[in-house]
Amino acid sequence: MINKIAIIMAMREEAKPIIEHFNLLPTKDLFDQQLPMEVYSNSNIFIILNGKDPIYHVESIGTQSAVITTLSVIQKIQPDLIINAGTAGGFAKRGGKIGEVYSAKSGVCFHDKRIPLGDYAAMGLGNYNCLEIPNLSQKLGLKQGVVTTGNSLDIIETDEKIIDSYKGELKDMEAAAIAMICQFYNMPLIILKSITDIVDGPHPIHEEFMENLELASHNLKEKCQQLIHEIQGKTIDQVN
Amino acid sequence: MINKIAIIMAMREEAKPIIEHFNLLPTKDLFDQQLPMEVYSNSNIFIILNGKDPIYHVESIGTQSAVITTLSVIQKIQPDLIINAGTAGGFAKRGGKIGEVYSAKSGVCFHDKRIPLGDYAAMGLGNYNCLEIPNLSQKLGLKQGVVTTGNSLDIIETDEKIIDSYKGELKDMEAAAIAMICQFYNMPLIILKSITDIVDGPHPIHEEFMENLELASHNLKEKCQQLIHEIQGKTIDQVN
Repeated sequence: MINKIAIIMAMREEAKPIIEHFNLLPTKDLFDQQLPMEVYSNSNIFIILNGKDPIYHVESIGTQSAVITTLSVIQKIQPDLIINAGTAGGFAKRGGKIGEVYSAKSGVCFHDKRIPLGDYAAMGLGNYNCLEIPNLSQKLGLKQGVVTTGNSLDIIETDEKIIDSYKGELKDMEAAAIAMICQFYNMPLIILKSITDIVDGPHPIHEEFMENLELASHNLKEKCQQLIHEIQGKTIDQVN
Repeated sequence: MINKIAIIMAMREEAKPIIEHFNLLPTKDLFDQQLPMEVYSNSNIFIILNGKDPIYHVESIGTQSAVITTLSVIQKIQPDLIINAGTAGGFAKRGGKIGEVYSAKSGVCFHDKRIPLGDYAAMGLGNYNCLEIPNLSQKLGLKQGVVTTGNSLDIIETDEKIIDSYKGELKDMEAAAIAMICQFYNMPLIILKSITDIVDGPHPIHEEFMENLELASHNLKEKCQQLIHEIQGKTIDQVN
């Protein structure tokens, strides 16, 4: 039965509305003190942020931080289910709009891990499972979409070609890395992504990202809270 | 004093000569059984491979696997020092030649983590410490070089521009991720890289990589074994 839920998020700004909604409190000493993650929790909901980079003093984002966080969450918190909630870029050519929230389809990939060496090619890009929630998505007004992950906020032609080959609808910087670790441990994972910027639109990604971060985070909170309400107390098989 | 040494390597092929040289034996149960790493050890030398990807059945390479391995090694083996030994691409324009072994200069960076968002840019690329060993490098016939890391085996213009901005001499797929974790834990790290392919040469990287893997791994073993002989029993301050 789903009781303990861990929500992995990259940035404090994205998480703030959810932390406030659930009245989560800062929680210390769950992880090695050398690691930068920050935890906010009540008895059964944990939000884990990658935390401030100890060297550069900005939030840690990207897949390496996502691996640290997910591995630590599974080993130390042992949740019944992980939600990765965050912002992402959308694509106008596939109907993406600022502020829309998606649940991910299963089969999350990297779009910047090219290893043209026989079977290594498929391993590099990956194709990681997550829980698909078609019924809940309909009920909660979530679109369902293909998520691909890379370590860069910008977009370059090489990445976009790979994203296009997957018909990628959401471009983020953490999901595939989180899904990779969850798959190792057979940990159920739901991915929610809210669009801050239109990758193939007319505005620079980084400007759009900052402008829409608050709106996207607000919408993410709404859907995340409704999702948690729907799934708590259910079994994994009942979540769909 | 340096007693317990952990050598982190990506591929079994790279590690085989070193495993044989030190008569290391397969060692089970150090890590969560869900994780793919493989360990070979004697009383004070540990080689840790990322291991076979459980989904794709090829060796796990890339920075996400490097994070899993390094975090696990530090938490469970608690070595006195980590060596990251592996193969890398070299650059003809900076004097790189197939089979040459380098020790890394401090300041290892990612060349494929572009976050053009104020201070996030520097955090993305990173600039991670490792132990520089100028005197040992001279004694053992190692070149010293700038290492940059990305998740792809191939080279694209965007990555090469970033590599050029660092005057990168070695392009690998793990070092910066390993150095990032080591820096969190203040864990001494020496990076040794042996050149399998010339990134800016006339031959396709993946062909050259396979052709020269045995030679590069042999040379890596020679230098790694000599390095261990030199540093065992010394203090970190005496290693230079």
